[in-house]
Amino acid sequence: MGNEWITTEEKKAVYKTIYARRDVRSLFTPEPIPSETLARILSAAHHAGSVGYMQPWNFILVEDKALRRKVKEAFLRERNEAAVLFDDEKRIQYLSFKLEGILEAPTNLIVTSESSRFGPQVIGRRSMPETDIYSTCCAIQNLWLAARAENIGVGWVSILKREELHAIFQIPLPIKIVAYLCLGFVTHFPAVPDLERAGWGKRLPLDQLVFFDAWKGPPSEPRQDLAAFLKNGKSLP
Amino acid sequence: MGNEWITTEEKKAVYKTIYARRDVRSLFTPEPIPSETLARILSAAHHAGSVGYMQPWNFILVEDKALRRKVKEAFLRERNEAAVLFDDEKRIQYLSFKLEGILEAPTNLIVTSESSRFGPQVIGRRSMPETDIYSTCCAIQNLWLAARAENIGVGWVSILKREELHAIFQIPLPIKIVAYLCLGFVTHFPAVPDLERAGWGKRLPLDQLVFFDAWKGPPSEPRQDLAAFLKNGKSLP
Repeated sequence: MGNEWITTEEKKAVYKTIYARRDVRSLFTPEPIPSETLARILSAAHHAGSVGYMQPWNFILVEDKALRRKVKEAFLRERNEAAVLFDDEKRIQYLSFKLEGILEAPTNLIVTSESSRFGPQVIGRRSMPETDIYSTCCAIQNLWLAARAENIGVGWVSILKREELHAIFQIPLPIKIVAYLCLGFVTHFPAVPDLERAGWGKRLPLDQLVFFDAWKGPPSEPRQDLAAFLKNGKSLP
Repeated sequence: MGNEWITTEEKKAVYKTIYARRDVRSLFTPEPIPSETLARILSAAHHAGSVGYMQPWNFILVEDKALRRKVKEAFLRERNEAAVLFDDEKRIQYLSFKLEGILEAPTNLIVTSESSRFGPQVIGRRSMPETDIYSTCCAIQNLWLAARAENIGVGWVSILKREELHAIFQIPLPIKIVAYLCLGFVTHFPAVPDLERAGWGKRLPLDQLVFFDAWKGPPSEPRQDLAAFLKNGKSLP
């Protein structure tokens, strides 16, 4: 017995969701996320694959206001420290960006990874020990897409010192904090990523990122047509 | 102007795809993947979010048979070295597992991450420098789900020494090899993950992996109902 095939209509829905996913920082509404919806999103994360089936992830739901204020303060300290590294023009732009929704989003979520779950002998982790963290990131992307499918925005806040999060949430040091996320319903999802709309960066041409049979290798004979397809931006079914 | 809302039908399609995704090693058919389909899958990967919009990923398509034979040999050496770490009973089981489809899958794909893309000042990478690799893993999960939506199986081979892959594919050392994937159409997608069917592991109860406001924190007052929802296995809309 196996899983069903995906239909053409379902396939289109998956691509639509992938392309419409955004890193959201400023469009959150205060409407609480129902527990049933949160359960679906967390369950989607939990159904990512994991190296040796170790499922190394944990999720800490953060909704307490006082705790979120502490995180917001930690963010502000870190943002100001990072700002000095940019030249004047970039610094003014950097400081003008809204880079988190810690207090506006009704739900924050910490995602962690536990390397020692099930002890040292996990299939596939000997050669590449970081694969447990890779699995956790795959779970996060599942969560992000499931949230988007629920029309819930997710913003990943990486301008935070891990030590501060360990302290605020009493997370033991051997547990790796992978992500601090803000979740909530949004007024709308922008058509273009924030940093692209702000002129900070552009999407790279995909045909320049794909190589063949070696680093920088040109298209192989049977894949001459692939580069043309890759140039067309979003590839839709 | 913004992106459309996701409809209930589309949402169901996303959850179906997330739950039906598998790590595939033994069910590949030799049918080549059309270039147009590959372009859609790669484009889905390229539309993951990335820290500071750095898009650190590259993709090396590996279809040459001689190269894949070299990778297969590297896998076999590594698998045998890893086997000695298991006790007798687990070792016999480990060696009986099919853990890759390097030669059976018509397409292999290396996914890499370039930390120095756009130089040292990337928004959000100062506090957590590994976030470029996290972004690359998110791209891989997009790819995995897009492939599943195309009814194409993906298997992640982590029993490989990175040095060998660097040498075979002339990948410069500062470039991080994140994943070696096998892609191809499949006879079917199993209902249950391979390692669960083989009795190696079980899916953990999700309600034990979710904490509230602190590591190991019990459900907050407004989230008393969440634990019950989490216990029900797959949470479907």
